[in-house]
Amino acid sequence: MTGVLELRLDELYAIGAEPEGGAYRPLYGAAWAAAVERVEGWMRDAGLETRRDAVGNLWGRATGSEPEKSIVTGSHIDTVRGGGRLDGALGIVAGLTAVETLLKDKGQPRRTLEVVAICEEEGSRFATNFWGSRAIIGSIDSVEAEMAQAMRERGLDPLRIASAARDDIDTFVELHIEQGAVLESSKAPVAVVSAIVGTVQLEVTVSGRSDHAGTTPMELRHDALAGAAAMIQAVESIARALGPPAVATVGRLRVEPDQINVVPGRVVFTVDLRHSDLGGRRALEERIRSLCATIASERGLGLETRVLQERPPVAMDAEVRALLWRAARDSGIKAAELVSGAGHDAQILGARCKVGMIFVPSIGGRSHCPEESTSPQDIELGTRVLMRALELMAY
Amino acid sequence: MTGVLELRLDELYAIGAEPEGGAYRPLYGAAWAAAVERVEGWMRDAGLETRRDAVGNLWGRATGSEPEKSIVTGSHIDTVRGGGRLDGALGIVAGLTAVETLLKDKGQPRRTLEVVAICEEEGSRFATNFWGSRAIIGSIDSVEAEMAQAMRERGLDPLRIASAARDDIDTFVELHIEQGAVLESSKAPVAVVSAIVGTVQLEVTVSGRSDHAGTTPMELRHDALAGAAAMIQAVESIARALGPPAVATVGRLRVEPDQINVVPGRVVFTVDLRHSDLGGRRALEERIRSLCATIASERGLGLETRVLQERPPVAMDAEVRALLWRAARDSGIKAAELVSGAGHDAQILGARCKVGMIFVPSIGGRSHCPEESTSPQDIELGTRVLMRALELMAY
Repeated sequence: MTGVLELRLDELYAIGAEPEGGAYRPLYGAAWAAAVERVEGWMRDAGLETRRDAVGNLWGRATGSEPEKSIVTGSHIDTVRGGGRLDGALGIVAGLTAVETLLKDKGQPRRTLEVVAICEEEGSRFATNFWGSRAIIGSIDSVEAEMAQAMRERGLDPLRIASAARDDIDTFVELHIEQGAVLESSKAPVAVVSAIVGTVQLEVTVSGRSDHAGTTPMELRHDALAGAAAMIQAVESIARALGPPAVATVGRLRVEPDQINVVPGRVVFTVDLRHSDLGGRRALEERIRSLCATIASERGLGLETRVLQERPPVAMDAEVRALLWRAARDSGIKAAELVSGAGHDAQILGARCKVGMIFVPSIGGRSHCPEESTSPQDIELGTRVLMRALELMAY
Repeated sequence: MTGVLELRLDELYAIGAEPEGGAYRPLYGAAWAAAVERVEGWMRDAGLETRRDAVGNLWGRATGSEPEKSIVTGSHIDTVRGGGRLDGALGIVAGLTAVETLLKDKGQPRRTLEVVAICEEEGSRFATNFWGSRAIIGSIDSVEAEMAQAMRERGLDPLRIASAARDDIDTFVELHIEQGAVLESSKAPVAVVSAIVGTVQLEVTVSGRSDHAGTTPMELRHDALAGAAAMIQAVESIARALGPPAVATVGRLRVEPDQINVVPGRVVFTVDLRHSDLGGRRALEERIRSLCATIASERGLGLETRVLQERPPVAMDAEVRALLWRAARDSGIKAAELVSGAGHDAQILGARCKVGMIFVPSIGGRSHCPEESTSPQDIELGTRVLMRALELMAY
């Protein structure tokens, strides 16, 4: 199976290849359309009946002999700018190859089996993360004009988005790379995901006073950047003190007036907080808010915090997790258990069906970059676990 | 004298007034030219013989009966964007009004007395701080094309810059606002400046590794911004620990890739260090460099530091300082002694003549903004000290 998996991953990676390395397949772009086309060809070759829904999710279906709700596998087909070979692509190629192999070896399934190439997950072109899975659960109620235009250019009707919603999916299982280095350092080739972390993204504004860098003694300053630096230190210390899986990141920061000889008067920075447990995530957020307030007050600085985005942690379905553990055991693989620090379509689809995820290791933890890589052995082992799980559910 | 001082300051402030408040008179611009024109008119009215040198410095001269080297006073006529009413303008108006009053009251001086409106000190348009005073000491050896063009548009010949150099100045005395809040809190209306601080401006580059903010556990990170935050804290602590007049400021900071969900891979920030004493300034720089290196090494981060600009501290001439103290005493004023945290033309002119400076308080320490202000009483007292000093030297 390794041969066809690697070949198909190479073929997809070549679509949208960028001159400086990596691939970019933004939603509804030319590379995106070419990739969907390619996957649809593979689906047909595998004997699946294909269709595209109103937002451009591509579905390949093997109708079961006892058609109840479907067993679905797949992943997203869009990529970030300069993206790697595996993020999203792996789940589509592995799911398709697993279903193809099952159909060849075992014939028609009892339950309907479907492979999906989800149109968008990354916010690759518009600020619309999880666009494809949000359409599947029927939670999209408006489209921006620019996006509607992009849909029309691909022959999709923005007024029909509601028709993409499905209530006939029983289980969604996705194989994905970890995108971190935890699994690699655990030496296990495969992990069963227990939960996807909850995220809060905050924007923090620290207000001080711009002053001349030469004429203002240290003790008369209200330096917004010195205050922000103390807060950044606090964010890091609190996440470390809480321990895994808590993580907290200050990723963006802007200084005003941003002049070499002026004491900063205002700093705006973001904090990205994640935890697999809602209580843990709240504790993380509360401690950070409280320590930042203390720092601001000690330094005579103004502080405003607003929530940019908030997503609760999503536990994977217990039944699906047990099934994935059994599938790993059946395949002779000693799996690990992992919390996903990254967001995935499963956290959206979980609102309407049972969800489960399998991770394979990311070499060096690298992702969203041309260096993104997983050994062919681990890819094959992950695909075997996925295939066995689909077999257990559908046959 | 207060009336004419305030009137002239108002008139100058109106030239280059910006709609959002403040004035902007960038070098060789229309507002700059109009301001030079206005000052030249006042000089002629005061009975001074005027001329403009090759870079556009405006000189007004009262030739002495025993012409030796000149006694010069004045300041710069350009302003920063959104600049205040007093920075530069005060030294020109006060110097001119003092000389005018002396000529009226005492007649022709023994020594030649000159008032100068220096064309540029602020880097107000090009990155050419101290352009006017550098021309006066003959230290300019090249002109950028864009600047040469701007000079030609004002009828100035860039090939003649060397002709602006003077070796016939005995003493330069400048009245200036403090631009900080030290004098205001000391309650003295006037200060004799002892030295202008030395400055080093560093650019520090911290290199870590960009990682996914969700999938990278805290202990596996090499977060360039968390490291930079620790360094910013160190810069502040070291300056506080050394005590006045040491100051250190991180004024600019840029994060890469500057994304909310990505651990920062690279941060570039600036450090502006000042001290009145070369040893103190070196100690400040060495401690900061050493602590930043320790922080980088503890966190597995790369560190590169380069010097952007370096200016040694300049002590004011002892003889001129003594004279200014006497002038204050003669005027019945209890003056303070102050180190200037800001740069001034005196630090450049000091290479070729005796220099001295008088400061008046800045209300709330504000400068380089529309709120820049000094009480009319303090302006008058500062001008009286300047006038008495000029009288002691020239009559």
